[in-house]
Amino acid sequence: MITSPHNEKLKLVRRMHERRHREREGLFVAEGEDLIAAGAGAGAEPVVLLRSGEDVEAELLAAVSSLGSGTRVLGVYRQRWSEPGGALSVYLHAVGDPGNVGAAIRSAHALADGPVMLGPGCADPYSPKAVRASMGSIFARPPARGRLAELPGRKLALDPHAELALADVEAEPPLVVTAGAEREGVPEEALAEADLRARIPMRAGGPDSLNVAMAVTVALYELRNRMARHG
Amino acid sequence: MITSPHNEKLKLVRRMHERRHREREGLFVAEGEDLIAAGAGAGAEPVVLLRSGEDVEAELLAAVSSLGSGTRVLGVYRQRWSEPGGALSVYLHAVGDPGNVGAAIRSAHALADGPVMLGPGCADPYSPKAVRASMGSIFARPPARGRLAELPGRKLALDPHAELALADVEAEPPLVVTAGAEREGVPEEALAEADLRARIPMRAGGPDSLNVAMAVTVALYELRNRMARHG
Repeated sequence: MITSPHNEKLKLVRRMHERRHREREGLFVAEGEDLIAAGAGAGAEPVVLLRSGEDVEAELLAAVSSLGSGTRVLGVYRQRWSEPGGALSVYLHAVGDPGNVGAAIRSAHALADGPVMLGPGCADPYSPKAVRASMGSIFARPPARGRLAELPGRKLALDPHAELALADVEAEPPLVVTAGAEREGVPEEALAEADLRARIPMRAGGPDSLNVAMAVTVALYELRNRMARHG
Repeated sequence: MITSPHNEKLKLVRRMHERRHREREGLFVAEGEDLIAAGAGAGAEPVVLLRSGEDVEAELLAAVSSLGSGTRVLGVYRQRWSEPGGALSVYLHAVGDPGNVGAAIRSAHALADGPVMLGPGCADPYSPKAVRASMGSIFARPPARGRLAELPGRKLALDPHAELALADVEAEPPLVVTAGAEREGVPEEALAEADLRARIPMRAGGPDSLNVAMAVTVALYELRNRMARHG
């Protein structure tokens, strides 16, 4: 039982609060029974596993937790990265909100056969908030890294100003759903690499965009259904 | 120009960090130029408007901001609540994550004509995080409060274990999309009040649920499209 805050395992967990340490060491933290179970279900072996009151004193574990309420169990895992590909996958450009990155990873795991590729300016998918938002899908379907141009398949950019509606896209695989940060949308340099642009039709008089993770999820749902119907 | 942290307006902003004060005073805070512009666009008059370096010293404003990076402008507004209704609307049960509540408010504003009704156990839609996640839709389409049984129209519960797929639902308005917290889904007492249950079809071998805001958004997209096609 760990009883000192100077313990090396606790020091490791504290370092994991910072992106540069996560990247340098290639590790990340998952907290809570649901995430730990998702890791086990995906065959991920924790490098360190700390259970409150068993492996470590409860107060010491709470002190290194990223959750306000503390945690009963915490694991440190190796980061994994997928190869890009699949009949349906996602490319995110400059999506800085970790909750959106994690939610997109969850939705791709549920609705697509390919991973989420993270382009420049995206939040760290292995931050505590992104890991939580992935609801454990970070283990079963790790993200990919790279540039849009490297991806095989047609690139479909989600663009609120496109003429084509999503439901009218020819859903011929492989397709890469491309989306950008809320405010700027997909930047021109990424749009220039897109093979087609489509919008999610919205109510007249309402806003002209959805949250980026919502838009990606709607696109995956629509395209998956259309591929299943025509494939 | 405010130069003292003891100023009454700054005290008001600080009180707004707590839900009980927001509820008691019927007020909330929006930060940042985008949200302030969304408020103005929806005709919401701020009770207090604080611009950094104009109305208040920059450091004093940063100290009451809920954003880590501080803010250039902050407004205090009156909470507003919608009446439930519409051809397509949403009911959330025990959705405790403010980001999900805010995102659902955004999606309903973009895709539906009715508001998001918040049932028991939901996060405060007027918390800073929910207001940000609504991307300003909190001003144009305030949420409603109440119980599912009070809502007119057929209640469609999103249930990963339902036999009926979302795309096979008869999209006869008025329809209320009902969803619950991630882990528990829609509880039995709310399911008992649902007129029908439907699932969002997912990839075999993948997870059996989406983030609740994603699920609601997909349902609104599908049902809106089907109402438009048949209506």
